[in-house]
Amino acid sequence: MADAQSYIAESLPRWREELDEFLRIPSISARSEHDGDTRATAEWLCDRMRAAGLETEIIDTPGHPVVLGEWRGAGPDAKTLLVYGHYDVQPVEPLDEWTSAPFEPEVRDGRIYARGSADDKGQLYLHIKAAEAHLKATGSLPVNLIILAEGEEEVGSPNLVPFVEGHRQRLASDAVIISDSSMFAPGLPSLLFSLRGLAYFEVHVQGPASDLHSGSYGGAVVNPANALAHIISTLHDQDGRIAIEGFYDDVVEWDEATRQAIRELPFDRDEFQASVGASELGGETGYSELERLWTRPTCDVNGFLSGYTGEGAKTVLPARAMAKISFRLVSDQNPDRVLELFRAHLSRVTPTGVTVTVKDLHGGHPWKAQLDESLKSAATSALERAFGATPVLVGEGGSIPIVGEFERILEAPALLIGFSHPGCNLHAPDEWFPVENFEKGIRALAYLYEELA
Amino acid sequence: MADAQSYIAESLPRWREELDEFLRIPSISARSEHDGDTRATAEWLCDRMRAAGLETEIIDTPGHPVVLGEWRGAGPDAKTLLVYGHYDVQPVEPLDEWTSAPFEPEVRDGRIYARGSADDKGQLYLHIKAAEAHLKATGSLPVNLIILAEGEEEVGSPNLVPFVEGHRQRLASDAVIISDSSMFAPGLPSLLFSLRGLAYFEVHVQGPASDLHSGSYGGAVVNPANALAHIISTLHDQDGRIAIEGFYDDVVEWDEATRQAIRELPFDRDEFQASVGASELGGETGYSELERLWTRPTCDVNGFLSGYTGEGAKTVLPARAMAKISFRLVSDQNPDRVLELFRAHLSRVTPTGVTVTVKDLHGGHPWKAQLDESLKSAATSALERAFGATPVLVGEGGSIPIVGEFERILEAPALLIGFSHPGCNLHAPDEWFPVENFEKGIRALAYLYEELA
Repeated sequence: MADAQSYIAESLPRWREELDEFLRIPSISARSEHDGDTRATAEWLCDRMRAAGLETEIIDTPGHPVVLGEWRGAGPDAKTLLVYGHYDVQPVEPLDEWTSAPFEPEVRDGRIYARGSADDKGQLYLHIKAAEAHLKATGSLPVNLIILAEGEEEVGSPNLVPFVEGHRQRLASDAVIISDSSMFAPGLPSLLFSLRGLAYFEVHVQGPASDLHSGSYGGAVVNPANALAHIISTLHDQDGRIAIEGFYDDVVEWDEATRQAIRELPFDRDEFQASVGASELGGETGYSELERLWTRPTCDVNGFLSGYTGEGAKTVLPARAMAKISFRLVSDQNPDRVLELFRAHLSRVTPTGVTVTVKDLHGGHPWKAQLDESLKSAATSALERAFGATPVLVGEGGSIPIVGEFERILEAPALLIGFSHPGCNLHAPDEWFPVENFEKGIRALAYLYEELA
Repeated sequence: MADAQSYIAESLPRWREELDEFLRIPSISARSEHDGDTRATAEWLCDRMRAAGLETEIIDTPGHPVVLGEWRGAGPDAKTLLVYGHYDVQPVEPLDEWTSAPFEPEVRDGRIYARGSADDKGQLYLHIKAAEAHLKATGSLPVNLIILAEGEEEVGSPNLVPFVEGHRQRLASDAVIISDSSMFAPGLPSLLFSLRGLAYFEVHVQGPASDLHSGSYGGAVVNPANALAHIISTLHDQDGRIAIEGFYDDVVEWDEATRQAIRELPFDRDEFQASVGASELGGETGYSELERLWTRPTCDVNGFLSGYTGEGAKTVLPARAMAKISFRLVSDQNPDRVLELFRAHLSRVTPTGVTVTVKDLHGGHPWKAQLDESLKSAATSALERAFGATPVLVGEGGSIPIVGEFERILEAPALLIGFSHPGCNLHAPDEWFPVENFEKGIRALAYLYEELA
């Protein structure tokens, strides 16, 4: 066997079993009760990288560790690629909405169902297997390769920037490759031109000192749940625009050519609506759905809680109310500036009788790709060889805050190639990854390492 | 011992221990896991009524049972009084805000802290002990007495009206006495002139079929939590009035004499604000705090829940959002009519892209006292003898929906005399009842049975 692609064909059944092992470990980084599982995942991953032929190291951070795999046998004159991915996963609630258990991978209808199958264990693993294919089949890789897997992406990567800054020499590379996003459609491989940023806050509204009887006190004591609902209602205007003063000051309007390219993508509005199961779509007037998702900022309540939410009718006037509220940002918005504007807005709209505090949970800058021609053509060619289709340029509504940071610190362009499919239930029950892309993804990345050499 | 009042003095220590036993049984009627405890409470209560000298019976209903105690030795020419109370209690969440455990009675600063101490176990027990005092000290009562204790008041008394209607002859009486409310101030005994009604709903807003990633879908899919916040925000106008079309059509404006009497009560606004611990009071413009609490309707969110509310930042666009929303009603509002108006309002203000359903959890009519002179003077005299102070006429913001039903079915006036103190944390953590009113309440009721003879 002296051919990476043949080695891939022969190894797939074994690799699928390995992936299931990877998916079974509940590495929920947001939950301290899973710290042991998250550590075990890092160790498992390190073992698999070593078995693939990489030199490995687990490097502790103040949070969850970084797993580093390296192969530098291509020599100082060859290109060096840095692959970034993450081995931690989102929480799994609401558990009763999963068809099969989140950490018991199950294949149904050509999909691997499990938490992390798409985001990002499944996609990270493609890179390790592509490297293994070259190293086991030929004894070498066409490029020097560094695979960096972190365990804190789902909690905002608090320790990754210091880590990259502290290992600037070791991580020096010609390009940063990230597979943590989706293809535009099945069979239509995609290169990313943009990511939205994020500003995620927790808003606490305090009314009376403790819960009160809504009969004995209602009408004379300001209700913090009503107040919070009022506050949330002021965040949008009638046109679905965010009604915070100054919020759009830094929003760049996209050029007509890009808007035209977006309009030409094979997007089926009815199918999209049916896939989410909503009675109607909505959003900012004057923009298409894809523009709303890729090029416009948002403000969504991610959760709220107040008072009595159990069975039956408890007549309580709650002492407090809480909402998790996040903004998706687009170029050139800045999460710190958004926090300032949000605080100023809250001080304007909060009713008397309650006190509001804001907790800044998570922030990330938006990103716009700086793809040079050689990078773009290498990626295009690799994807064409694996998928038999020319990739399209697409945006992504989600955030990978670290992308811009890698570019800044390492002074190397980032190339984002995702292999999940739309509707793969990222961050939701029944997350899945397409079985066919486990093979095609590994093949595409094995080609990419050649094309970029 | 041939004197009820002396018998009370001597029995108090024993009766306090009995009360603690009563308070220890967690008869939370709203929670099916406490059905056994609620039944055990009924049986305990029946035993104590029998020991007091009443003939007793536990009568099953489709829900929790009714406990009936009767003494008819005063003969057919004497008056018959029906005492109504309830032995069930509210849920106890949030548990971590209780200073001592809710079902472990503890005396601190002259207060008996326990769930049900004020609402209504403690007050119901006063009547049983007042009857026992007469029966044990003198062998008889000045009136025929029926004590009816139900176990479903905190879930809206679903089986009580059919019960009273089905036992109309047996429950026939000259007056219905209820102690389930508060005195206006410590040392200032009070007779109730009004109760607010209640219309309690659960509102469910459905957006997409399942939770979505807020990055991948936010901006193009209508968020049900944002939508519910908007809906709630439309329920009030700038003046704190309820902005539902037709809502005030049936609201009776109170006469100037009553408003004047309310204004003359010794109400300390600052003290009230300090007691609830709010940064400022609020409510409908144009009315004093007591008017807002007693004579004006309200709309309060009792609880809401949507999306992710745990630790950290989960970027989810929730599939659904829920709020418990209740209205306190005043004469002559009708909960069924309010449901109609509420539904019509929701259909006007619900954004496209989400679906709203309303569940009717609980309704009760408001009540205005019809006190004739003999009833009023008997109550006044009994309270003066026990408290050494002339009672005031007060309203009550809470609801006891059954009051109006008793009057309607039995064609007898209701007399509401409450013995808890303001700020006794009804339906909230750290519910308490004043130790001194355990004695004064029993004495007052023992006098009342004489005065009404």
